[in-house]
Formats: sequence, C-alpha cells, structure tokens
Amino acid sequence: MARGLNRVTLVGTLTQDPELRYTAGGLAVMELNLAGTEFITDEQGQTREVPWYHRAKLLGKSAEFWGDNLKAGMALFVDGRLEYRTWEQEGQKKSSLEIRAERIEVLALEGKRGTVTVTDARGQERLRGGLNLVMLVGNLTRDPEVRYTPQGTAVARLGLAVNERYTSRQGAEQERTHYIEAQAWRELAEYAGELRKGEGAFFMGRLVNDSWVAQDGTKRYVTRVELVRLERLARGTVQSGGDGSQNGRTGKIDIEEGLEDFPPEEDLPF
Amino acid sequence: MARGLNRVTLVGTLTQDPELRYTAGGLAVMELNLAGTEFITDEQGQTREVPWYHRAKLLGKSAEFWGDNLKAGMALFVDGRLEYRTWEQEGQKKSSLEIRAERIEVLALEGKRGTVTVTDARGQERLRGGLNLVMLVGNLTRDPEVRYTPQGTAVARLGLAVNERYTSRQGAEQERTHYIEAQAWRELAEYAGELRKGEGAFFMGRLVNDSWVAQDGTKRYVTRVELVRLERLARGTVQSGGDGSQNGRTGKIDIEEGLEDFPPEEDLPF
Repeated sequence: MARGLNRVTLVGTLTQDPELRYTAGGLAVMELNLAGTEFITDEQGQTREVPWYHRAKLLGKSAEFWGDNLKAGMALFVDGRLEYRTWEQEGQKKSSLEIRAERIEVLALEGKRGTVTVTDARGQERLRGGLNLVMLVGNLTRDPEVRYTPQGTAVARLGLAVNERYTSRQGAEQERTHYIEAQAWRELAEYAGELRKGEGAFFMGRLVNDSWVAQDGTKRYVTRVELVRLERLARGTVQSGGDGSQNGRTGKIDIEEGLEDFPPEEDLPF
Repeated sequence: MARGLNRVTLVGTLTQDPELRYTAGGLAVMELNLAGTEFITDEQGQTREVPWYHRAKLLGKSAEFWGDNLKAGMALFVDGRLEYRTWEQEGQKKSSLEIRAERIEVLALEGKRGTVTVTDARGQERLRGGLNLVMLVGNLTRDPEVRYTPQGTAVARLGLAVNERYTSRQGAEQERTHYIEAQAWRELAEYAGELRKGEGAFFMGRLVNDSWVAQDGTKRYVTRVELVRLERLARGTVQSGGDGSQNGRTGKIDIEEGLEDFPPEEDLPF
C-alpha cells in the first residue's frame, strides 16, 4: 500500500473553554471544539456560507503546554491528522475517526477587517471565513458506487485506507492504517465511479459530520471528507522503492478492514 | 522565534523530462519543472485562469527512486517546503528560495473529465486546474509598508522568517531560518500594514515568480507568496513552552538577516 499522506488544517473559534484532563495512564488530553464557516462558490457562481463544527484532540506535552490558556471564542489554527481507532464495547466492534491536533496557534482577530465571528443558535462563537482543509493519499477500500439523488444529482461514496508508519517507544518500526470515508458530487462523483478498489488516490476536501437513522432505528454518526478534488495515482511508474517509502506492501487485509462501522449503502437516504 | 510551519503543495505537469544528476559529494539531485493553472475567483466574482511555473528539487534516495521514470507531460502531486539558501559568489552575497520536494506522486489524468492540459507558447504541457498552495507560520522580518498602485490599489510587501529545527547527521539539534517574501493586495494589504516586525503570523497563498529591472540595470528575480490569507498570532498566551517547541528564543539576529538580497522598496515599479 502506498505511503499515506494525512493532513487536516482548520481555522476556527473555540466554542467552549477546553479542559485539560488526564487518562488513567497519565496522558494529558485536551479536546478542542472548533467552529467555523467557509465561503464556497458553487458551479453557478453563487457563494454560500457553509458552517462546520469539529472536535480535535491535543495530547501529551502540547496539551499541558496550553493548559488553561485557551478560552471560548478564541480563534485557532489547528494542524494535524485524522486518526482512525477501533475498540470493543459490549462485544461490539466500534470505531471512530478523530482529528489529532499536532500543532495549534492562537490567532489574533482584533482589529482585523473582513473576518468576524457570528453567534450561533447555541450562543457559541463561530468564525466567519474559517478554513477546513483535508489532504490525503491512500488506497481505495472498495469500488466506489455512483448513486443519484431524487433530483438526479450524482453522488459517490469512497473509502480510503491511509497508511501511517511510526516508530514505537521501543524504537520499532510500526505501521497502521486509518480508514476514511469520502463523498463526491456531480462530475467528481462520475469520475469516482471509474476508480477501482486498491487504486492509489489523492483526496482534497472539507471535513463534514453527518448523522442519519439506520434501519435498526439507532442514530449513527460519521465524519467524512466532502471532496473538492480527486486524483488517481498512476500505477507501475516505478516497480520497487529505492528507500522503501514510496511503495510498501499491498495489504489486502488492511484494505478489507474498517468497513464494518461505516454506514452500509442501504442506510443511505438515496 | 516561533517554531515554523513551512509547506508547499503543487499539482502540475512536468514541462520537461527531469534528469537525475549527482553533486560532487555524491548526492542525487532531480529538478522538476512544473506548470499549472489555477482558477481564481476575484472579488467581482470573475474567474480568471492564472498560470504558474515552478521548479522543485528532489534529493537523495527519493530522486534515485524515481530515476528516469518521470517524463514531460506527466501530472505530479508535489509536497514539500521552501528552502532559503545563501552563498558567496565573486565576493557578493547571493540567496535563493527553492522548493524542496519531500514527496511526489504521479497522477493518472487519462479519462479524467474536466482536467486537461494546454500547450503553452513554448510547446510545453501546462495542467489546467492545478494546485499551488503555500502555508507558513513564522515571524515578520520588518514592519510591512502599504503602497498604492497608480490605480489606487493597496499593496503590501511582507517578509517572514520561518524557523526550522532538524537533527544533523551527527545527531545534533540544529536550527535554521528560511526567509520568505510575500505580497498582499487590497484589504489584506491594509491589514498587513497594522502588523509589526517580530510578530508571529500565519500566511496562506500561492507561490509566484516575479522579475524586474533594478536601478543598476540588472534583471532580478524573486519567488514570493501571493497571500490569500494572513493572520496574526496572538502573543503572550503562554509564556514559556512545555516541550520547548511552541515558543523558542526570539532571535533578533535571525529576523534582521536575509533582507539584503530581496528587492529594495525603491526598485518596485510602484
């Protein structure tokens, strides 16, 4: 599987004062609840203001460094990556996709022309003109299927397996995979329909949260990438890696995994 | 000085077959000449197609890995950073700002709707709908000065010092600084005028190459960032760093440096 690229960049305001807490193992954890809007120009040239809410996690020394200095209403630049985790709960396999913040900066908005915050329905400050950018490189976990809304708009759901290599505390080279769902509309959806499982792809888009009621009546949530750009990676340009980092194993098991917890296609509203 | 963030992401076509060469010291070097256009919507809602040409350098094993597999006309995703270098030539101090590619991927454009290449005046393939994205965090090297074009449009030039920490081959913690010039227009220029030397800032924009004839009659070139977003970093949120990586020393000498080789304000056409 291709070496993964996994980047999330957000600019938004804190909707609440973040609290520093510690896990049982003594790891500092800080949850950052961020809100922003982006101005997006659609195909008809109309500019819409799209709000978003995301939670990012800051861990360890960085969390302790910021301590109780972060307050609701502050604007932050957050740079990090998407982290896919699985666990067992009451015999059921659960999974989540979180934003792991690797770097944050407090932005000074005072006196700034153009950018302002709006107060949302819950009384929280939401940054107008925020930033919500995701870039990923990985391999498709399935053949994307193109569907159509009742209005005839093409939409495709894509799954991407993004490989991460890291060095463990014991100094061992480790590898793990993040499973990320994405959605493409219109022409991009039609193009997605030409891609096949296992292919390498470059995703660029916005992170969105979605919820729906599944067939069993329970409410489900998913964080996914709304694609603004999708590119296939060419295959077979170079057969084997000089430094081993360009092409790794093609992990069939990795690609198969991580599907169970995403909404089955039959749960989709269209 | 704040820990720097330094990222360049390009999607464009190779205008020439890149050649792998070696330095006297045995380091593999590959120069990638890339061309693309971006569709940019201005304040009046007009979409313009803006062409760009940039050269990125791929070094070491990555360069050898790609070998002679890259050909003119191929579309590439390039992820890397800006590298500022200085040297002496005939007693004169010279400097350059280069794109160091850290990762490349060949994109498969065949059968793709929407994205096509155009042949430019020199017969080179230029990707329509490329990507040219720069994100930086650093400190201002001077007070930005706002000027006005004959048409009355505000423009500001900004200098940013971006700190980089790295581990040398001998395992020592090293630090160096990249000096990067930027330009802001209209409201963003007026806002830039409120910023002061030494302040931390987040820059987001497009990389552009510019050339002009200096007062001594010689032609000068500069690579700079055309800003689409500029944010001041708040000061004094936290006084000292928990892990030492959030706030380092405020290096006055670093900030003073790197100015000599950039165009003096009097060389500007307005």
